[in-house]
Amino acid sequence: MAGNTLGSLFRLTTFGESHGAALGGIVDGCPAGLVLDDKAVQAELARRRPGQSALTTSRAEADEVQWLSGLVSTTEGVLTTGAPIGFTVMNTAARPADYDHLQHTFRPSHADFTYEAKYGFRDVRGGGRASARETVARVVGGAVARQVLATMGVEVGAYVERVQDISMPLPPSFHSREEVDAHPVRCPHPDTAKRMEERIAEVKKAGDTVGGAIVLVARGVPAGWGEPVFDRLHADLAKALWSLPATKSLELGSGLSGTLMRGSDHNDAFVNRGDRIGTATNRSGGIQGGISNGEDIVMRIGFKPVATLLQPGTSVDRQGNSVSLEGRGRHDPCVLPRAVPMVEAMACMVLVDHALRQRAARLTFGA
Amino acid sequence: MAGNTLGSLFRLTTFGESHGAALGGIVDGCPAGLVLDDKAVQAELARRRPGQSALTTSRAEADEVQWLSGLVSTTEGVLTTGAPIGFTVMNTAARPADYDHLQHTFRPSHADFTYEAKYGFRDVRGGGRASARETVARVVGGAVARQVLATMGVEVGAYVERVQDISMPLPPSFHSREEVDAHPVRCPHPDTAKRMEERIAEVKKAGDTVGGAIVLVARGVPAGWGEPVFDRLHADLAKALWSLPATKSLELGSGLSGTLMRGSDHNDAFVNRGDRIGTATNRSGGIQGGISNGEDIVMRIGFKPVATLLQPGTSVDRQGNSVSLEGRGRHDPCVLPRAVPMVEAMACMVLVDHALRQRAARLTFGA
Amino acid sequence: MAGNTLGSLFRLTTFGESHGAALGGIVDGCPAGLVLDDKAVQAELARRRPGQSALTTSRAEADEVQWLSGLVSTTEGVLTTGAPIGFTVMNTAARPADYDHLQHTFRPSHADFTYEAKYGFRDVRGGGRASARETVARVVGGAVARQVLATMGVEVGAYVERVQDISMPLPPSFHSREEVDAHPVRCPHPDTAKRMEERIAEVKKAGDTVGGAIVLVARGVPAGWGEPVFDRLHADLAKALWSLPATKSLELGSGLSGTLMRGSDHNDAFVNRGDRIGTATNRSGGIQGGISNGEDIVMRIGFKPVATLLQPGTSVDRQGNSVSLEGRGRHDPCVLPRAVPMVEAMACMVLVDHALRQRAARLTFGA
Amino acid sequence: MAGNTLGSLFRLTTFGESHGAALGGIVDGCPAGLVLDDKAVQAELARRRPGQSALTTSRAEADEVQWLSGLVSTTEGVLTTGAPIGFTVMNTAARPADYDHLQHTFRPSHADFTYEAKYGFRDVRGGGRASARETVARVVGGAVARQVLATMGVEVGAYVERVQDISMPLPPSFHSREEVDAHPVRCPHPDTAKRMEERIAEVKKAGDTVGGAIVLVARGVPAGWGEPVFDRLHADLAKALWSLPATKSLELGSGLSGTLMRGSDHNDAFVNRGDRIGTATNRSGGIQGGISNGEDIVMRIGFKPVATLLQPGTSVDRQGNSVSLEGRGRHDPCVLPRAVPMVEAMACMVLVDHALRQRAARLTFGA
Repeated sequence: MAGNTLGSLFRLTTFGESHGAALGGIVDGCPAGLVLDDKAVQAELARRRPGQSALTTSRAEADEVQWLSGLVSTTEGVLTTGAPIGFTVMNTAARPADYDHLQHTFRPSHADFTYEAKYGFRDVRGGGRASARETVARVVGGAVARQVLATMGVEVGAYVERVQDISMPLPPSFHSREEVDAHPVRCPHPDTAKRMEERIAEVKKAGDTVGGAIVLVARGVPAGWGEPVFDRLHADLAKALWSLPATKSLELGSGLSGTLMRGSDHNDAFVNRGDRIGTATNRSGGIQGGISNGEDIVMRIGFKPVATLLQPGTSVDRQGNSVSLEGRGRHDPCVLPRAVPMVEAMACMVLVDHALRQRAARLTFGA
Repeated sequence: MAGNTLGSLFRLTTFGESHGAALGGIVDGCPAGLVLDDKAVQAELARRRPGQSALTTSRAEADEVQWLSGLVSTTEGVLTTGAPIGFTVMNTAARPADYDHLQHTFRPSHADFTYEAKYGFRDVRGGGRASARETVARVVGGAVARQVLATMGVEVGAYVERVQDISMPLPPSFHSREEVDAHPVRCPHPDTAKRMEERIAEVKKAGDTVGGAIVLVARGVPAGWGEPVFDRLHADLAKALWSLPATKSLELGSGLSGTLMRGSDHNDAFVNRGDRIGTATNRSGGIQGGISNGEDIVMRIGFKPVATLLQPGTSVDRQGNSVSLEGRGRHDPCVLPRAVPMVEAMACMVLVDHALRQRAARLTFGA
Repeated sequence: MAGNTLGSLFRLTTFGESHGAALGGIVDGCPAGLVLDDKAVQAELARRRPGQSALTTSRAEADEVQWLSGLVSTTEGVLTTGAPIGFTVMNTAARPADYDHLQHTFRPSHADFTYEAKYGFRDVRGGGRASARETVARVVGGAVARQVLATMGVEVGAYVERVQDISMPLPPSFHSREEVDAHPVRCPHPDTAKRMEERIAEVKKAGDTVGGAIVLVARGVPAGWGEPVFDRLHADLAKALWSLPATKSLELGSGLSGTLMRGSDHNDAFVNRGDRIGTATNRSGGIQGGISNGEDIVMRIGFKPVATLLQPGTSVDRQGNSVSLEGRGRHDPCVLPRAVPMVEAMACMVLVDHALRQRAARLTFGA
Repeated sequence: MAGNTLGSLFRLTTFGESHGAALGGIVDGCPAGLVLDDKAVQAELARRRPGQSALTTSRAEADEVQWLSGLVSTTEGVLTTGAPIGFTVMNTAARPADYDHLQHTFRPSHADFTYEAKYGFRDVRGGGRASARETVARVVGGAVARQVLATMGVEVGAYVERVQDISMPLPPSFHSREEVDAHPVRCPHPDTAKRMEERIAEVKKAGDTVGGAIVLVARGVPAGWGEPVFDRLHADLAKALWSLPATKSLELGSGLSGTLMRGSDHNDAFVNRGDRIGTATNRSGGIQGGISNGEDIVMRIGFKPVATLLQPGTSVDRQGNSVSLEGRGRHDPCVLPRAVPMVEAMACMVLVDHALRQRAARLTFGA
């Protein structure tokens, strides 16, 4: 209820601040019997890690996950036991003192003012709980979920489709990890990637920031996941994605362009695909009536330019007096490359949750 | 967990199908001591009711709410007692036989196929639980929530900003109920409203449908509502709004256009408003770090053209054979005018939920 | 969160007051495909109904359930569709005016005082939400759950073991519905039943009340239901049973007598039962470490003498002044016979909930 | 849903196994602004710690809590910020190899068999998640909750009332920490304490174990905490207490003896206490209709003799073959002295949860 838990049957509860001792969480409800690949979890963290390229913040964190429970070593590998999986990721490059000068200042478009309004005071150190560093624990939970999905034949991939006004010339579709990670900006279209990277470099030099859009695709999701009426599959995905920092927009399938069409042009005709019933087009984005239909699930998430600028500015203090802001610290000029693994993590967790919920839908499961 | 409950402290659980006996629900957690204005609830239902104008379906339903519990008559009026408020709205114009011919057919872009994939069979009668008629119970819950918000000085309003490509020439802002309801299409800009109504009439004549966009504004929300990190105020609003039928896109504050800006242009500067700290612009849409900042909360929701056409078409049956579809029934050519009260209802319930949750944020409430 | 919902995957939310328009509820999460036997549900209500024998209150209520949603008639019978099952039971013999004289009085050992302390005022009519009449909706939910359990080979039975100091001379074990209902007091031991009924008649004549104990047995529960650590199967059963009005004590398996034994005498030795591993004794009451072990689940619930006496007394009003209480109304001299179906209902719902939760415990369900 | 979370507004999620790396948890929903006394938390852990006296297991664990988040150092002390409080307690004396010989054996009245039935295999090391060592994290959560309660004027105390058949000659009432901890057995009646300690020593020498009963008293709880109908205050307390290992019975107020009385003897007469309305007797145990009435909350919990004996025995393996069991390891001859802080911890957490929930009961909180 205090907002730090995601999910119902597959559930992640997280803790930790940007400049505190550690981040971490508890994955509760991971089914027993999963062979957990620790290296693959660490690889997801590496994709999210600060300092991974010239496009990101220079804060250097190893971001190594320590597993504290819920696993047992066997001859088959490390297995989940069904017990809650507790984990921590230590902060090794925290610099809380960097924020002392902000004690009485509210940074524009940050959570400084609202946290203080809510709690009566705030943890000044680097945004505390409001920092995007909090997503470390989400990436760990998502990496576990991804491995559960793999046993069900489901793959989740995301990529940067647009940086500011520089956009891929191709419609949304699934791209492999190799294609996406071939460029630091995580756009799988080489020419576009190059232009994006130039733009980010230019913006960074100016101490400024930019936003853009990420496409999310889940393929292999069988028909039948999702619950009517409030817990529609896309409603739960929406909540999870909107809980990421800096989110400004979300589209499903045909999205905004679909709202401009007529129904006779928009409907997805059913077709017989031999082993299953499919649709000729996918304007529905893989979800109809809140339940997956077996086609690719496709969403697009827009992110704002991050609020922390490396140029001087002004703001107000607690008394409403004007104060000047220095432009310093370690920050990303564009969150999108690092947001790709975060988006995937959120989607993976929501999908596993609904996969497990689907098991309760019928009297005889599997019938 | 089966998806028919919304909220945590202010909680609505609903039931009912389009062509069953009744729709209804239980509002649990409405604070004791509210003077409930039954007429105002009924007025919200009237705004959602089918058959209210030439723009909507011809199905004629009285949509009268019956209160079954949770209220007591006193000399001060009808008071909520703190007990759960049970209510029903009887279906009086159900015609389940209208759907007999669809027993073996999956209508395109409907939930027929996915419900059957989920549950092993489906309730054929008019989409059953997947019908938008289900939102009757949401409007009742929202109307109760709106009255709770009124005691806190909060107003929630929505309006149709765009039908297909016909859009209001003004930026999002709060419009009064009188302005919005002055036109059947619920657009507060008279010239645009007229053009929208012409477009809908034209589309209806062709047996076709159109979508568009609705703007939602909540004003008077004090700073401090919303929970980090997963239950951000806008994440809970997003889930609630995406749970409405036909939703295709959602934007917060500057939305998509914000993702095209630079950070130095996008940040909302703080200003001293005398009695409170405000922001000069509102690209944040009233929410920073997931918590309200005292400015107007502004969202935009895109809706697709509804899937049911009044023109003949084709689809497949359970075996994947091609079948022809008649174009008949009672359906809306454009959901947007009737979606306005639904959007407001969802927002009201989420806001009350967070208002109550905020009471637990500090050791000394009110301090 | 306001306390009117039970369960997680199989979930009952209820509403209604003793002297309001109706009681009812929503069963959400009943798996699709159950052939619902309406007569069997009605039979459970008849076992709970007031006025069923000379041992109970004279209030005459038909207690007929109306189904409003979630069901569809097919050639196989009435099937659950997976949608929420809404239902009502109308109050036909409500007499709210009977309570007018209590408006300013707190009846001893009732909830009058505490409801007023909680909500600032109270619904005076017959205890409102605090009346045991509220359990009507639980019995409906339990009757649905019982039918789900039947498809899994699980039976749940309860009986009156003791009225005041008159107790059955046999250890707890499963007794058939026929044995239990052969006597109005619902004790399956004929001689004891006769003595209990005499005692209740005697107490009723004196305008007084008595309590006692009920034994609950669930048989056929497979090993593996229940969740560590907080949602142990017996912890969820305990919460459900303690939520019934008038509960004073609860024991599991060997119960209080087990706390007097040495470990070497108390442990249940495992034995090979051919098709499964069982235990020679059942001091564990069918649950070990919070998870069912395949033996009978056995609990004993103690109930206090009901607080409403049909003899004059005294109490205080809101200002603390002494006031006299009349002994009038329609009340039970002993709740136990009518509590038997309530106890069974609660157990059935908790068991179905855990049956469904168990489906998420392993990577490959059924493996 | 996987059972490792307790509470709704004040919520503890735990992880960890007896012989894994660490135990720990996350307290989510602790109100901001509490001055957290770390020494007091550590003192509660010391009361639960193994090896604290000759009456307990010889396993030596420092049980030091590490705080990882949710706190900030200020000139007023360490304050809770409203963010989730993550913490760990490292296992320093784990000896997983001690359990290798049990890999194929099910110990009687342990959770070995049921965990394997549930999950398909089990973590053999010392009972894994089923070990009572898991309660370390509960004691930390309870110690935080206790400090929240202190700001509300509420005190929670428990003590050993009975070991096997040796019982205190006094009715349940509040005893100070000093009185209770004056004796290793935690019985505040010196003569009885002495006899209990002799009995435990005798039983330990025989490699056997004993159970008994603990009394729990909460004083200072204001009238109005608790929710109708399923989340009655005593129902939530019951669930929390029954989730502790080895619980066999629970009584509220007059408990079992109350079920033997007549209503005319059992009712608690209201009396005017000047500043509040109280009751002359407290057979209700401080709770009426599920809501606190301002009197002491009184419960009695019975515990079985622990299942692990230090004497040889027999059991079965996975195939149902008879196997011999050695009597070795580090175990308690009687859990009751160490269960006292666990019982208090559970009660503290439930009470804070309901204190916060009460804030949502009325339109105007505090009115």
